Amino acid sequence: MRTRAAVALEPGKPLEIMDVNLEGPKAGEVLVELKATGICHTDEFTLSGDDPEGLFPAILGHEGAGIVQEVGEGVTSLKPGDHVIPLYTPECRECASCLSQKTNLCTAIRATQGQGLMPDGTTRFSMLDGTPIYHYMGCSTFANHTVMPEIALAKIDPNAPFDKVCYVGCGVTTGIGAVLNNAKVEQGAKCAVFGLGGIGLNVIQGLRMAGADMIIGVDINPDREEWGNRFGMTHFVNPNDTDNIVEHLVNMTKTPFDQIGGCDYTFDCTGNVNVMRQALEACHRGWGESIVIGVAPAGAEISTRPFQLVTGRTWKGSAFGGARGRTDVPQIVDWYMQGKIEIDPMITHTLKLDEINHGFELLRKGESIRSVVLY
Amino acid sequence: MRTRAAVALEPGKPLEIMDVNLEGPKAGEVLVELKATGICHTDEFTLSGDDPEGLFPAILGHEGAGIVQEVGEGVTSLKPGDHVIPLYTPECRECASCLSQKTNLCTAIRATQGQGLMPDGTTRFSMLDGTPIYHYMGCSTFANHTVMPEIALAKIDPNAPFDKVCYVGCGVTTGIGAVLNNAKVEQGAKCAVFGLGGIGLNVIQGLRMAGADMIIGVDINPDREEWGNRFGMTHFVNPNDTDNIVEHLVNMTKTPFDQIGGCDYTFDCTGNVNVMRQALEACHRGWGESIVIGVAPAGAEISTRPFQLVTGRTWKGSAFGGARGRTDVPQIVDWYMQGKIEIDPMITHTLKLDEINHGFELLRKGESIRSVVLY
Repeated sequence: MRTRAAVALEPGKPLEIMDVNLEGPKAGEVLVELKATGICHTDEFTLSGDDPEGLFPAILGHEGAGIVQEVGEGVTSLKPGDHVIPLYTPECRECASCLSQKTNLCTAIRATQGQGLMPDGTTRFSMLDGTPIYHYMGCSTFANHTVMPEIALAKIDPNAPFDKVCYVGCGVTTGIGAVLNNAKVEQGAKCAVFGLGGIGLNVIQGLRMAGADMIIGVDINPDREEWGNRFGMTHFVNPNDTDNIVEHLVNMTKTPFDQIGGCDYTFDCTGNVNVMRQALEACHRGWGESIVIGVAPAGAEISTRPFQLVTGRTWKGSAFGGARGRTDVPQIVDWYMQGKIEIDPMITHTLKLDEINHGFELLRKGESIRSVVLY
Repeated sequence: MRTRAAVALEPGKPLEIMDVNLEGPKAGEVLVELKATGICHTDEFTLSGDDPEGLFPAILGHEGAGIVQEVGEGVTSLKPGDHVIPLYTPECRECASCLSQKTNLCTAIRATQGQGLMPDGTTRFSMLDGTPIYHYMGCSTFANHTVMPEIALAKIDPNAPFDKVCYVGCGVTTGIGAVLNNAKVEQGAKCAVFGLGGIGLNVIQGLRMAGADMIIGVDINPDREEWGNRFGMTHFVNPNDTDNIVEHLVNMTKTPFDQIGGCDYTFDCTGNVNVMRQALEACHRGWGESIVIGVAPAGAEISTRPFQLVTGRTWKGSAFGGARGRTDVPQIVDWYMQGKIEIDPMITHTLKLDEINHGFELLRKGESIRSVVLY
């Protein structure tokens, strides 16, 4: 079949909207008609050429929602008509990682996914001249249709609006999950969130759910204060207004009884390795935990004095919010439907596929929280 | 009163054995007659001059055992005749850290202890000419008598032999505690221990207690293989025999079902920041945890790509094995008395106070596991 897609032909160039060939689903695969997709910084990271593992030509996009059109041989958990969210972190429930019950990082199809291929080592997309087009993060949601492995689709409430819950496919789950699954924040905790973009704001609403007492937003963009307030932030700090952001946070979190100070949990949502260090060092001596969420530039390294760890701080990371996609994503969609979490105000722009490059512009300029493309 | 002590007059010089003045215990303090003390790398670190916080003249030593001689005003938990182990990490049970129940790093007397002083801001030791002598790590066990705050003494089984259980004051607790309190290693875990000295061997016996399946010792000194075997090590790797120690450990821990590989827990007992990085990166993707125990040179920093954390590895540290001294140290002494842990074979040398500089020589050359001075 043919479908319409925004294709990344070369790094650093705008996407090109064109018709492409799409082969039907093979065994264990599912054809999905996408209804909406968000545009995330990770797409921009790869499109810019900064991602050393970026492959071209490719169909980017990994934050989608749609409807199952057709299922391949042996697919049992999905049928045509099911509403689904594609998962860049699959959940096979059979590999050593899934069965460990200690990680969400399913390894069933990791090797081929990293090479831009389906599990059988080939692509389903191709140019009209036959040139294969790489898949991206196992999803390729910048196309009206895509083919996904069954294990990489979460079946969701059919009443959920595609243009909102597509965001659960990455940003919402990444932010809320880092709080609930990775940090396991408890009632009354004092927390700081570095970077109040599409991930950071979801960390903030995750902290509100978890009952954190102090939810300190940290961003160099003063416009983000209002955004943070909207989702439960209790304090805002602009690092440009203080000599030493670490000391500032430590002082803010002191109490008459606790004159040591420091955050119980901090979250880096910037991808900046210097900020990651600040986030660690702003943690409370003895027990503070810092969670790295942001994706750093290729080759960048984090550093600190080991004394920071020896005196009780813990450095952790989070990928896809520690969420097991097929199990947890439908639940987060339910939370949205129940009004337990907010998504609507974060979708600042809605575009057509033809306007997708404008969505990237908004993201680069920091003018959007999330732009969503509707098919 | 006067007592006999080994005094560190200047960095880089041998200790000098001499009589010194010792004031009696003030309110909340206790006079202890030391019966034995171990010599630890941390003493050597300070004596060498490499410790930027080292103060001179000082009476070093922090791994002792002795008998209470006299108690100051208000002391209620100890009386003359009690057998005790001095604690460089006190346990006041009243500060924000102790009451958090999340850390052993009591902060009640941290400020003065770091300045080589008793909690009232003065020293009890002085030279015969009146020059004050600094306390060290709040203990100063290289003296026949010392004065300690009540909150920094663990009361132990009076039948326990001083020349063995003094080692519980640092090395034994640091190693076993890192396994039981910080890593909380579970049955069947695959673990690696970097550096098989006086701490590393205790990590190994901690792993044996915890029921780890693979206990891999890593040391560049081939003589340490036999030592590791003695306490429960199951595999030994000399990094000089392999091109890439991280890859080697990852491959060793693969199974037919788990082709990812990596350690569930790793422990750095070297203080070398490059080794700390290897220990982190040898952890299993998704859940491996690395515990930094070793003390790094001043200013040295650990580094890694944040991707290591984002893909599920955790970087932690351990100080005094996460042990709450007054609560946990008596229990570890009991474990020794019950035969649940071993100490005797690790005490490789027993010396008199006059021979203490020889003990430092043995330590620098790597010829001792532990030298103990008997008073």
